[in-house]
Amino acid sequence: MAERLVVVGGDAGGMTAAAQARRRNDAIEIVALERGNWTSYSACGIPYLVSGAVGELAQLVARSPQEFRARFRIDVRLRHEVMGIDLDARKVEVRDHGHDRTFTVGFDQLLIGTGARPRRPPLPGIDGDHVHGVQTLDDAAHLLEHAADVKSRNVVVVGGGYIGLEIAEAFVERGARVTVVEASPQLMGTLDPEVAAVIADAMKRMGIDVRLGLEVTGFEPRGVRTEDGTIVADLVVLGLGVVPNGELAGAAGIELGVAGAVRVDRRQRTSADGVWAAGDCCESFHLVSQRDVYVPLGTVANKQSRVAGINLVGGYATFPGVLGTAVTRVCDTEVARTGLNEREATEAGFGYTVASIESTTRAGYLPTARPMTVKMLAEERSGRVLGAQIVGGPGAAKRIDVVAMALAAGMSAHDIVDADLGYAPPFGPLWDPVQVAARRLVDRADRRGSGGG
Amino acid sequence: MAERLVVVGGDAGGMTAAAQARRRNDAIEIVALERGNWTSYSACGIPYLVSGAVGELAQLVARSPQEFRARFRIDVRLRHEVMGIDLDARKVEVRDHGHDRTFTVGFDQLLIGTGARPRRPPLPGIDGDHVHGVQTLDDAAHLLEHAADVKSRNVVVVGGGYIGLEIAEAFVERGARVTVVEASPQLMGTLDPEVAAVIADAMKRMGIDVRLGLEVTGFEPRGVRTEDGTIVADLVVLGLGVVPNGELAGAAGIELGVAGAVRVDRRQRTSADGVWAAGDCCESFHLVSQRDVYVPLGTVANKQSRVAGINLVGGYATFPGVLGTAVTRVCDTEVARTGLNEREATEAGFGYTVASIESTTRAGYLPTARPMTVKMLAEERSGRVLGAQIVGGPGAAKRIDVVAMALAAGMSAHDIVDADLGYAPPFGPLWDPVQVAARRLVDRADRRGSGGG
Repeated sequence: MAERLVVVGGDAGGMTAAAQARRRNDAIEIVALERGNWTSYSACGIPYLVSGAVGELAQLVARSPQEFRARFRIDVRLRHEVMGIDLDARKVEVRDHGHDRTFTVGFDQLLIGTGARPRRPPLPGIDGDHVHGVQTLDDAAHLLEHAADVKSRNVVVVGGGYIGLEIAEAFVERGARVTVVEASPQLMGTLDPEVAAVIADAMKRMGIDVRLGLEVTGFEPRGVRTEDGTIVADLVVLGLGVVPNGELAGAAGIELGVAGAVRVDRRQRTSADGVWAAGDCCESFHLVSQRDVYVPLGTVANKQSRVAGINLVGGYATFPGVLGTAVTRVCDTEVARTGLNEREATEAGFGYTVASIESTTRAGYLPTARPMTVKMLAEERSGRVLGAQIVGGPGAAKRIDVVAMALAAGMSAHDIVDADLGYAPPFGPLWDPVQVAARRLVDRADRRGSGGG
Repeated sequence: MAERLVVVGGDAGGMTAAAQARRRNDAIEIVALERGNWTSYSACGIPYLVSGAVGELAQLVARSPQEFRARFRIDVRLRHEVMGIDLDARKVEVRDHGHDRTFTVGFDQLLIGTGARPRRPPLPGIDGDHVHGVQTLDDAAHLLEHAADVKSRNVVVVGGGYIGLEIAEAFVERGARVTVVEASPQLMGTLDPEVAAVIADAMKRMGIDVRLGLEVTGFEPRGVRTEDGTIVADLVVLGLGVVPNGELAGAAGIELGVAGAVRVDRRQRTSADGVWAAGDCCESFHLVSQRDVYVPLGTVANKQSRVAGINLVGGYATFPGVLGTAVTRVCDTEVARTGLNEREATEAGFGYTVASIESTTRAGYLPTARPMTVKMLAEERSGRVLGAQIVGGPGAAKRIDVVAMALAAGMSAHDIVDADLGYAPPFGPLWDPVQVAARRLVDRADRRGSGGG
């Protein structure tokens, strides 16, 4: 009899691996169990569904169950939730919510791709039907239904991270009055404060009421209670980050790591033989801090899942790790970060130099040029780049990829100065702003006498 | 008495070094001699002057002679042409065109930044007043004057390289009827033919008459003669590339290299003691082919000049070399290249695999997503990336910088697949198109058994 692979979870963490496994092995039997109603979708696309830029939920689905069946011979079961893993008997217990029955499925290889769920702190009223998370397409369907119902008049977004900001902008585009409430003194905790402040300003210019340093204390049917009174809310979106769905693995005795995420090695192996994990349910390794981290992002999930898929059918692949690269935009203001920010560099014990420069997205003499800021950190003495943040007009953010490549290669600020990057006036100034920041770092090091004359 | 640095040429090759030298040395006397009327300008901006996007010639000047004098204490002399270098006596002979006199200036250090001039093949009529090169701001002034005069009705661009295409588009925007004549069977010889064909199509859609494989045989006062008859032309622009102004150095006995450009080492030293060169007059080293090449680009000129400036006042800096990275756009179609194309890889003796993939500039479900193609070459066996070409909608071209960084670091296609690049739906698909191309290369290598299962 052929080996059987059981995949727990029908999104990126699981299904990229399943497809990869099939590409490399014709014989293996593949069963994928998903407790919700969708496979392989873009959760990052949900804000564009809310804004109306994307017309239908189904457009966010990269591959449907039918496609997985027809093209990859994967037996996908929706509304099937795995309730337990028996490592000794090598089987999972499955609840079929559609038919209200429970049964077991044996496995030879098991892939855990259970993903994550929105963080819901234990506040009064947080389980109200109008308090939405936006992690799955089922969440999105519920949110859209409610948004149409209440005409989205007053929307409060709790939490000023990436998803919170994107959802806030989407609701502005729908014509809602939007408030963002953030407990810490700045938006986007992965940015340094002065960079985050540029984003807060961009949001205010859009008419969003940005309330920083304000703790939410509870939820009422038509309001969000805070330390500073109640904010009217027909609809609330939680943007407080996510927690890994690691409990299923933990209960089976599989080792958990950072933040309760499933611990994996470079090949995406868990502590249990023949059991693999990938995506938002598991941890990653940070290439700059050299520490285990929890970075739940679609890009990471897909890469990990591809690597797991290759390995679980006897191939060889590794996922070296993450840099925490992220980009987003608020209206026409783009923002990006990679590697370590000042706080993270300090926490990791690095001595560093920092440069922050102002430049433009295009040659300065073109009327379409917009300001952009690049902040870059390099290690003392070695000059090795540790991270960067960018904020500016259209075309600013994706320049972060240059720094991400430099970090992956362990390059110094010198190496970025020397890099032969593309230039023409509509694409940037002659010295790319990323290179201007690197040059500033090099010049500083020189002046301190560790370099030139 | 303080040391004296004489700089020959007032554009990027010379003046970046002069400013850098001043920053690091207060005492040195700096004299800069420029035969034309301008210092430190963006020649790449000339097409935007022609199109009208930039209103005035002076806007393309990054730093005026007044600025160099006031801020850097550099004695800039315009309309002063260096006629000869006497290495033994350590002096240059200078012709002051403004006052019709000749004199000599002694130097301790000499920097040659004489730039390049448009290639003018010895064809009948090529020296006609209506046949323009576009290399200097003086060229641009002459071109603009003529363009206003003839109302730019019929414009013929001879040569289908970067500057030719940019000027062609600029004249379309001015309302001219534009023909591009190119002797070879494709535009843009630095691209592989199928990539160049996408650009030819974009130009035709703009209404430009693109005549490939057509040799120009001469110029008439109101026409361009070709093997296939005469094309009406009120104004002709030459886009046949440039030749280095290496003759001054050559006549002084300084060694010349590729294409007659001044030979330099990694610190921009020429073969003569205390004589340096930088910019379009000198050669570069290609980091992938490991050969000396002539790549006259503003980015390269500025980097070389910065390095020369540091070294000539006793500092230490090197310019490692170029990748031949270039980006441009024709209307909304962007194009980019870096490293080696197929022809260059073959010439350099590399065995290679090639992948060409279709993707989109943004997440495919967004209505603003546009197609883009990435072609990537990797060395056989090692998997090391050798080069890439990109063509597609807005946002496509600058992705070439990811490959440029990979080339600089000697990375493999695997490394690009693993890279933690920024993702959000308005910036690209979840797998960046550059990574999709790299993945294709990796998958091919795997299937041939040099990798996974």
